[in-house]
Amino acid sequence: MKNTLYKHPDFDNSILKNAPDAATITAKEDAVVPDGYHATSIFPEYIKIGGAWKLIEGSRMDCAVAIRGGVPMAVEHRNIREGDAIVVGREEDGSSGILMYTHGFDAAAQQEDEFAFRASRTRETSYSRDYDSLYEQLRYERDNGSSVWVLGPACTFDFDSRKAMEKLIDNGFVDAVFAGNALATHDLEAAVFKTALGQDIYTQRSVSGGHYHHLDTINMVNQSGSVKAFIEERGIDDGIMAALTRNDIPFVLAGSIRDDGPLPDVIADVYEAQAKMRGIVKKATTVIALATQLHAIATGNMTPSYTVQNGVVRTVNFYAVDVSEFAVNKLRDRGSLSAKSIVTNVQDFLVNLERGLI
Amino acid sequence: MKNTLYKHPDFDNSILKNAPDAATITAKEDAVVPDGYHATSIFPEYIKIGGAWKLIEGSRMDCAVAIRGGVPMAVEHRNIREGDAIVVGREEDGSSGILMYTHGFDAAAQQEDEFAFRASRTRETSYSRDYDSLYEQLRYERDNGSSVWVLGPACTFDFDSRKAMEKLIDNGFVDAVFAGNALATHDLEAAVFKTALGQDIYTQRSVSGGHYHHLDTINMVNQSGSVKAFIEERGIDDGIMAALTRNDIPFVLAGSIRDDGPLPDVIADVYEAQAKMRGIVKKATTVIALATQLHAIATGNMTPSYTVQNGVVRTVNFYAVDVSEFAVNKLRDRGSLSAKSIVTNVQDFLVNLERGLI
Amino acid sequence: MKNTLYKHPDFDNSILKNAPDAATITAKEDAVVPDGYHATSIFPEYIKIGGAWKLIEGSRMDCAVAIRGGVPMAVEHRNIREGDAIVVGREEDGSSGILMYTHGFDAAAQQEDEFAFRASRTRETSYSRDYDSLYEQLRYERDNGSSVWVLGPACTFDFDSRKAMEKLIDNGFVDAVFAGNALATHDLEAAVFKTALGQDIYTQRSVSGGHYHHLDTINMVNQSGSVKAFIEERGIDDGIMAALTRNDIPFVLAGSIRDDGPLPDVIADVYEAQAKMRGIVKKATTVIALATQLHAIATGNMTPSYTVQNGVVRTVNFYAVDVSEFAVNKLRDRGSLSAKSIVTNVQDFLVNLERGLI
Amino acid sequence: MKNTLYKHPDFDNSILKNAPDAATITAKEDAVVPDGYHATSIFPEYIKIGGAWKLIEGSRMDCAVAIRGGVPMAVEHRNIREGDAIVVGREEDGSSGILMYTHGFDAAAQQEDEFAFRASRTRETSYSRDYDSLYEQLRYERDNGSSVWVLGPACTFDFDSRKAMEKLIDNGFVDAVFAGNALATHDLEAAVFKTALGQDIYTQRSVSGGHYHHLDTINMVNQSGSVKAFIEERGIDDGIMAALTRNDIPFVLAGSIRDDGPLPDVIADVYEAQAKMRGIVKKATTVIALATQLHAIATGNMTPSYTVQNGVVRTVNFYAVDVSEFAVNKLRDRGSLSAKSIVTNVQDFLVNLERGLI
Repeated sequence: MKNTLYKHPDFDNSILKNAPDAATITAKEDAVVPDGYHATSIFPEYIKIGGAWKLIEGSRMDCAVAIRGGVPMAVEHRNIREGDAIVVGREEDGSSGILMYTHGFDAAAQQEDEFAFRASRTRETSYSRDYDSLYEQLRYERDNGSSVWVLGPACTFDFDSRKAMEKLIDNGFVDAVFAGNALATHDLEAAVFKTALGQDIYTQRSVSGGHYHHLDTINMVNQSGSVKAFIEERGIDDGIMAALTRNDIPFVLAGSIRDDGPLPDVIADVYEAQAKMRGIVKKATTVIALATQLHAIATGNMTPSYTVQNGVVRTVNFYAVDVSEFAVNKLRDRGSLSAKSIVTNVQDFLVNLERGLI
Repeated sequence: MKNTLYKHPDFDNSILKNAPDAATITAKEDAVVPDGYHATSIFPEYIKIGGAWKLIEGSRMDCAVAIRGGVPMAVEHRNIREGDAIVVGREEDGSSGILMYTHGFDAAAQQEDEFAFRASRTRETSYSRDYDSLYEQLRYERDNGSSVWVLGPACTFDFDSRKAMEKLIDNGFVDAVFAGNALATHDLEAAVFKTALGQDIYTQRSVSGGHYHHLDTINMVNQSGSVKAFIEERGIDDGIMAALTRNDIPFVLAGSIRDDGPLPDVIADVYEAQAKMRGIVKKATTVIALATQLHAIATGNMTPSYTVQNGVVRTVNFYAVDVSEFAVNKLRDRGSLSAKSIVTNVQDFLVNLERGLI
Repeated sequence: MKNTLYKHPDFDNSILKNAPDAATITAKEDAVVPDGYHATSIFPEYIKIGGAWKLIEGSRMDCAVAIRGGVPMAVEHRNIREGDAIVVGREEDGSSGILMYTHGFDAAAQQEDEFAFRASRTRETSYSRDYDSLYEQLRYERDNGSSVWVLGPACTFDFDSRKAMEKLIDNGFVDAVFAGNALATHDLEAAVFKTALGQDIYTQRSVSGGHYHHLDTINMVNQSGSVKAFIEERGIDDGIMAALTRNDIPFVLAGSIRDDGPLPDVIADVYEAQAKMRGIVKKATTVIALATQLHAIATGNMTPSYTVQNGVVRTVNFYAVDVSEFAVNKLRDRGSLSAKSIVTNVQDFLVNLERGLI
Repeated sequence: MKNTLYKHPDFDNSILKNAPDAATITAKEDAVVPDGYHATSIFPEYIKIGGAWKLIEGSRMDCAVAIRGGVPMAVEHRNIREGDAIVVGREEDGSSGILMYTHGFDAAAQQEDEFAFRASRTRETSYSRDYDSLYEQLRYERDNGSSVWVLGPACTFDFDSRKAMEKLIDNGFVDAVFAGNALATHDLEAAVFKTALGQDIYTQRSVSGGHYHHLDTINMVNQSGSVKAFIEERGIDDGIMAALTRNDIPFVLAGSIRDDGPLPDVIADVYEAQAKMRGIVKKATTVIALATQLHAIATGNMTPSYTVQNGVVRTVNFYAVDVSEFAVNKLRDRGSLSAKSIVTNVQDFLVNLERGLI
């Protein structure tokens, strides 16, 4: 994998050459698209505009395509504005100006045993090579790409894996983190009290009064006004949030209806949170989702199979790690060589990764 | 269970009698509580104010207690306002004016084999009596209480269970529904296209062009402006959302970062959604959560073990149904006789329930 | 499904017509086959012997083919005897006298949406049609076929589902049962003590001294000498084993290293147990495996996709029901239209089945 | 943990001192015990014989107690012989000559946070300290005890974990292995073909003709006559079975009805297999069960909480590792400080263990 070579469509092919411009209809109101609108996939798609085929920018699946300033943009329905020129048409073979192109990475796929990658993953799948290729990939991205990590709260419930994640951040393998209120709260709780939800993260002992710890932590951070201010004021130097802060790595904490508190950094409006996440995902080259269904599926929804990096089209690699086959297989069905899943406890995954990489 | 008798604390007991008023400290800013604040549990709690013990109103766990107008109110940290008088103290035995009272339903608990209820539930637990008591409970609530249903999208993925849920609504067993964008979208998709995510909900066949169905559905509802308007304009008469609409039953659709669309009724701000949900939960006497971790845990967090109905304290019953032991056991640890879980596929659960009740 | 029409191979096809007899090599010792031996699949396979194509009789996958008395027989390696003529060759297209024929039920498959059947099943798959077709199939088999049920112990842990299984037996839907020591022991324990492993199967209450119940039950049956004698002597009239006994329905109790006791009917030698099971499976037309990995996989291994009934080739239908996706999907990969799985708790499955059928 | 100090019962206590000898009744036939027989637990139990309290030897739960040669022996019902003097009585407080003693390791338990150990384990439990204590325990047992490993086939499906297990054996951490036909077959298949069930254990690629590999392997071993002969004749030097053979470490391969083949070393009679396993377990001081429900539960059933080593009573430590909460929690309920479980994929567990120990 690493950076697989993209083979552009053959635009001299007669169908593509002779195709008309894609048809458009003007949106009549905000957040509503005209009948027959085209919806994007995870694959590279080209729209013919003014006689030229143009790659949709910043694509993700299930968007409408609005032509803004002559450029085809993938836009969520809710972000469509009255007056947008919306591409219509559901033929995707190019003949009517819309081309969904699924063969760009075929060469790489063959090399990589596409079949093996696509197979459903279970607890009994052999993962040795996945680990090896992941080590290679993450080293490559450290120098050449952007790795986005999506973290469930369990990543910080255990002493060793929290430490492993911290080291991965300090060693340059993490370019952004997506998580929720719980991951950040319990990571900071561990920094202050050595507990998560009141349980010692090393000894597992339930600490007396421990049920106050996460509330106390949230209250302290609210006094400070932000996670960053809290970490700096209190001199917090261990854990995931501290490592992100000292390395100036962006994180998005998306709100959910489960949240206590929340921390001041949590984004209450989920669509605003989606927008922030998507802004970061557009530049991602590898995404690793650990032990979170909500955030992993949300990120999977907005992650295309490719990105444009310095003008070159390359794959985006998506890894999902969870102890449940059901959870990882939900993410697997992305029709692309770039999605892989591993069925295991993320604690061991992180400890393995740290030992393999650092 | 049904309506179990509450035994009030013995306020003539010397500790309670001689206890001082609970101490309070004034909140200095919004969303921040003073050090030493008291946090609520799921149990009835009494605060001594002006020499009198007063039951906290509208309680839920992990709230601060603000005395407003002489009444102790359970308030989430984010809803604390500068100037609120916040109860401080972590002794809960009454001696300092705060009493957490866990014995109010002991008589009922003994009768109900508390031990059996508290045990961890698995696929191999015997559920016959749980079904029987649930039938009895739901019949009781239809006439005397308020049943809130929390529905994951899987409730509408299957023809028979969607129909069963519709009948339960039409027959008066449902007083409110909490769900997300997906449940509502796929239920309406089924009404329009007979599919969920493009798959026929009876034949399982993947329909050509089916990946457009949920987007088309959302787009149509956005044109109508609301789920209700859409259902009425299009004459939709099958499914969960149609049944809720024709029976005038409230629903809360809480937004999440996974959402496509969303439907116009979905609440984007998760804390606003929480507030709407809690407004309804305060009046709930039974809560049934089906196949959703996010919404079930969110609802569990805000549901106390008791409620006050016509001036009488009674239990709130909480049922969680999921095919995963991990999911239901997350909800089980509520320390009360009122929480029960069943490990099964919600499709069969709903079909069983409908056959048992109607 | 029911009884799907089989389309015989076109033996006039030039490849098949011109093919030589299959090659054989004589086995030189018991339980060892010659190099290059042919192994059977779950599909109909034909061997050319003396110029004529003959269907392998009593086939199951992973057997050698021994020609005994001019007939090709599928024989487990351990049952090969010195002197057996063993078919060799791994071309399966007929050209060398061995034909694996996978298209016999294509017409039926198309009708039945083979794609939908083959898809991986999860908790979110829609099962309504599977139930309907299962009702139809079981009614058909009652009059025309033979239904073998493979039961895990959980089938008798719950009051309602134990009762449902009993009724299915009494109403003619069960032609044989495969199980282990635990299913039989706990079913009889329930008959004597109303418990399973010491827990009341209705109230879930742990009975004092209940940890003796299964040992006491086994001891009583050993005194009687057999399950049948025990049931008759004690006048046991409820539960699965009693229903099997009064209806004279055969059961195979296969031993396992987990067993306490065991009951006198349990077969200690697992290959002898396999042989007994296979003797019954050869006549089966539908197999239903509930909540048991060991017995379900064992039965799956020995169940072909077809059988010959009154000289006519027909499908064998295999259903697997388990609350775990991993368990049912292990059984799914049988490459045939005849395997279906349902992810649910078998308690609800049995209760549903009884209500749908009786 | 390691070797925790046992505190003997206070036999000078008046109840114990004044207790009569335990009552016995003579067994009238093989495999049947008299009514009122006493059944053993996993705890140390003492029987008063001739005025002296004697510890039951080689105990395991759910056995009868036969006094043979003046010594109380734990005997499975099936191994009771006509004429055995069977201890009767179900009072376990010593007053009637039978003492179940649960407090021998209390001091150790307190030190080890018994509460934390007993809690139900999930994917979200913190396992750092469990790993650390396991490293310490296994190093201790290498020099002072006996570690029995119970292996599911998944231990050999993956290149890295198979290699890790091999190294653990070569480095002295393994004193015996319990497994089934599949573990041994696929391990040898990997040695010969680099595959498991026809899939390359490193690349995951399905090899052409790979479905013959396990049958071919079994056939070759049957030609050699035993696993040992096969390994030596073919010069197999990688994998679990080769490491066991070259280090002369005993293994028990117990037959099951799922087996293909089987290999010649597999024991067909499950009760004979149980007897072999129990012979080894009696000397075990630590048991580690990985990714196998059948063999793990079988071993758990026959493993007491203590053993007598050089005349000293010490704990037996039982670890269960599986990706499924349901599987590990089935083993957890052993009422003793010695049972621990870890929810993870055994591949990562083994790789972690090897890195932590070697």
